[in-house]
Amino acid sequence: MAQIPPPPSPAIEFWFEFASNYSYLSVMRIEDAARRRGVSIAWKPFLLGPIFRALGMETSPFVLQKEKGAYVRQDMVRQCGKYGLRWTQPSVFPRLGVLPLRIALIGAEEPWMGAFCRRVMELNFVLDEDMNQPDRLAPILTELGLPAAEIMDAAQAEPTKTRLRAQTEEARRRGVFGAPTFFVGKQMFWGNDRLDDALLFASEGKP
Amino acid sequence: MAQIPPPPSPAIEFWFEFASNYSYLSVMRIEDAARRRGVSIAWKPFLLGPIFRALGMETSPFVLQKEKGAYVRQDMVRQCGKYGLRWTQPSVFPRLGVLPLRIALIGAEEPWMGAFCRRVMELNFVLDEDMNQPDRLAPILTELGLPAAEIMDAAQAEPTKTRLRAQTEEARRRGVFGAPTFFVGKQMFWGNDRLDDALLFASEGKP
Repeated sequence: MAQIPPPPSPAIEFWFEFASNYSYLSVMRIEDAARRRGVSIAWKPFLLGPIFRALGMETSPFVLQKEKGAYVRQDMVRQCGKYGLRWTQPSVFPRLGVLPLRIALIGAEEPWMGAFCRRVMELNFVLDEDMNQPDRLAPILTELGLPAAEIMDAAQAEPTKTRLRAQTEEARRRGVFGAPTFFVGKQMFWGNDRLDDALLFASEGKP
Repeated sequence: MAQIPPPPSPAIEFWFEFASNYSYLSVMRIEDAARRRGVSIAWKPFLLGPIFRALGMETSPFVLQKEKGAYVRQDMVRQCGKYGLRWTQPSVFPRLGVLPLRIALIGAEEPWMGAFCRRVMELNFVLDEDMNQPDRLAPILTELGLPAAEIMDAAQAEPTKTRLRAQTEEARRRGVFGAPTFFVGKQMFWGNDRLDDALLFASEGKP
């Protein structure tokens, strides 16, 4: 008699961008929140720029719509207060994060992924520093006990660039229009405000 | 010696549109939620159309961005499940709601305001009916024990039309770019997802 396979362990896909302020909120809290619910995370770094351009926008809607941008600055102060996170309005927004995204692609299934992503987000949204600089990123890798030079080389090699473009194209194909976006099976959840709903759905099947 | 005035009772401004699906969620739950926190509601009906046009959009972003529209249809089913609300995807979206908005302007400080608004929202988002028809709206007023003909006449009189335009212009001037929007003093909160934060801020000063 064939054995019945065990039920798949609950999992959430986490699509994020280092330039995205609402992704910052989710990056900082997803590992703890997912662990509490017994949900595993599939980290999906992607580029928001090509997504926005495919939707006819030259840059972030927070820049294109100044009313929304002004609101988001107010909202981020309150949201960070609520989650106990530090917050500095970046002097450059949106900030290019293609190099850390490529590193994140390499680390997506590694145990250091969460810690690395939190450190990059803090470069952008706490320290207000250029997060696309090798000399800012290599020390993070080193502090995490990783072979920084080797990882930086792999991140800047052609296959990684191609993979990041392909992952971005997958996001577009699946209807992603902003970040963060979560998938649990075919259910899509948009925005940090839906992270808890998505985790509840992953762990208990309650959307 | 001059008396110190008592502290103002906590209050929230609730800017909403009958055409707006996320306003539906807030209209259905705001009276109960505000009562539990001892917060009074200043109801602020306004027209979203002129706001969107001032931002360079011909209609709702849920129509203009088909990816976002597809997501919102998925999200509304889940959100209504979460709040225990009925939901029918309207066959016409966004649906014109200028007449019920004018009635709401007249009722804004009346005890029947909440009940009237919930009934109009159900016309649009549960019964999938044209909510801009006098023969749909008059029975609601009558069932609420109100002089329907008198209120309908006042709603369609020029001063009410002018007031709705002025209130919409006030929304635009204050940076409103979508609905629902809440103000507590100068703090602005956008979206049904922020209703609880706004009420907490109104009652306890915690943003």
